[in-house]
Amino acid sequence: MVSEGEAFCPGHVTAFFEVHEDPDPRKKGSRGAGLSLSLGVRTVARVRDDIHPTIDVLVNGRRQKAEVTERVAQKVLGDRSCEVKILSDTSLPVSQGFGVSAAAALSTALALDDALGTKIPRDELVAIAHETEVECGTGLGDVVPASMGGMDMRLKPGAPGHADVRKFPVEADLLLAVIGAEMPTKAVLQDPKKVVAINRIGGAFVDEFSRDPTLERLFELGARFAEGTGLADKRVLEVIRASRMFGRATMAMLGNSVVATGNREQLATLYLKFGTLQRCGIDNEGARVL
Amino acid sequence: MVSEGEAFCPGHVTAFFEVHEDPDPRKKGSRGAGLSLSLGVRTVARVRDDIHPTIDVLVNGRRQKAEVTERVAQKVLGDRSCEVKILSDTSLPVSQGFGVSAAAALSTALALDDALGTKIPRDELVAIAHETEVECGTGLGDVVPASMGGMDMRLKPGAPGHADVRKFPVEADLLLAVIGAEMPTKAVLQDPKKVVAINRIGGAFVDEFSRDPTLERLFELGARFAEGTGLADKRVLEVIRASRMFGRATMAMLGNSVVATGNREQLATLYLKFGTLQRCGIDNEGARVL
Repeated sequence: MVSEGEAFCPGHVTAFFEVHEDPDPRKKGSRGAGLSLSLGVRTVARVRDDIHPTIDVLVNGRRQKAEVTERVAQKVLGDRSCEVKILSDTSLPVSQGFGVSAAAALSTALALDDALGTKIPRDELVAIAHETEVECGTGLGDVVPASMGGMDMRLKPGAPGHADVRKFPVEADLLLAVIGAEMPTKAVLQDPKKVVAINRIGGAFVDEFSRDPTLERLFELGARFAEGTGLADKRVLEVIRASRMFGRATMAMLGNSVVATGNREQLATLYLKFGTLQRCGIDNEGARVL
Repeated sequence: MVSEGEAFCPGHVTAFFEVHEDPDPRKKGSRGAGLSLSLGVRTVARVRDDIHPTIDVLVNGRRQKAEVTERVAQKVLGDRSCEVKILSDTSLPVSQGFGVSAAAALSTALALDDALGTKIPRDELVAIAHETEVECGTGLGDVVPASMGGMDMRLKPGAPGHADVRKFPVEADLLLAVIGAEMPTKAVLQDPKKVVAINRIGGAFVDEFSRDPTLERLFELGARFAEGTGLADKRVLEVIRASRMFGRATMAMLGNSVVATGNREQLATLYLKFGTLQRCGIDNEGARVL
């Protein structure tokens, strides 16, 4: 018998954050703030009983080594003996700060649970996706806010049960501009100097944001964070500054890319000088079974 | 000893074409017309003598199974015993009609020949890349025009020695818009019905273009080809038609994407409703060692 489940998880952009270390991956994570995107990852999980269990992952129709997704599928599967196909589709680029690995992980957990009929509690599926992202070093804080949608303020790090995340439904027409090479999250988070720079101002920015959690403030603090931490290179800073004439922009953490809102035509004209452009909105629903 | 070579090959968009079958992959290919793009693939080949020969391919920093590139590297390498690293970078998406596999193949051939100091004649390197694309089923006609640059008219198919390709240097500001899922070239070219539809009008269009080889004509015939062959789906046709208000657009063969020129701001605003956008120019130089 073949059964199928399908789920969507929004992409997620973090504007600023603070790293929290903990030996327990469900407690480890980040405090911070960001936005869930109307673009994300749509995953179909197809399962069939089989004495030779296999997990096959295809991203945009291409067979891929996708460590986070495979591990999440393994955990949801437990000791069931199935042939599993995970078919994920996305128009978002990877390693550009749009939370694609988190969205792939969580949409896989939701779709596979649905396909298997395991009825694992939603919070546990979110926790599995968070924990696996942390274990693989591909992200610290996208899973939980992407599960909720909207603009988020992450006051306590970690998976559900540990995290304290507030959600603010907002409407905005966004532009995503990729203006440089991919930035593997792992490499940045393994660099102690970078983590020191991030934590030197990230925590204070979360506190500041909590006093006035508006979209405007998110962009303003994000732009200061990008510059203050040194995570933004010259081109990214130039783009963020030039955007001020037509709206506001901030760096998508961790990517050589920006998210912006304002006069779309003028921002688009500016960004096309630098790279690849996409338009989207905010997802206020969060990850869901389809 | 480690030695290194570096090369660039432009991306390439085909506007219309006709498939030519031949048991010899150097004679097999397509007649057609298209444009070489200022965006393309930049490849560094790094070689070191080693008793255990290996070929490692990284695309945008990610280890990948890249059949065409690996086979090209194998052919250029011959029976030399080296450890080879092929590092290719591109901002173009794959399987969207921008000739990325061709550009990866040819930039690899040029870079690796340079690194090894083998001094294989340029025409032979181009032929190796063309032949390998054909063998792998990933393309039929991008390699030779991308080796030359400009706007191209391919009157006879195949690799250098067989092909008859004319080059017209042109200047244009282009927009590339990806508006649907990836379209694997292999799947289209293995569908006999699609090949019949392509050849029913492709050949006549090449003849028509040869009487008036202008950029305007390229776009006009390309748009008619996209519709007449049924290769364009509803969304692509809608985008091509809507583009007429602000300029001209045609489908990038074979991708769910378009290439356009005209009023950039207005076209950009239109395309952002549909997908991902990039700006580029025309490469009039062709593939080159850097």
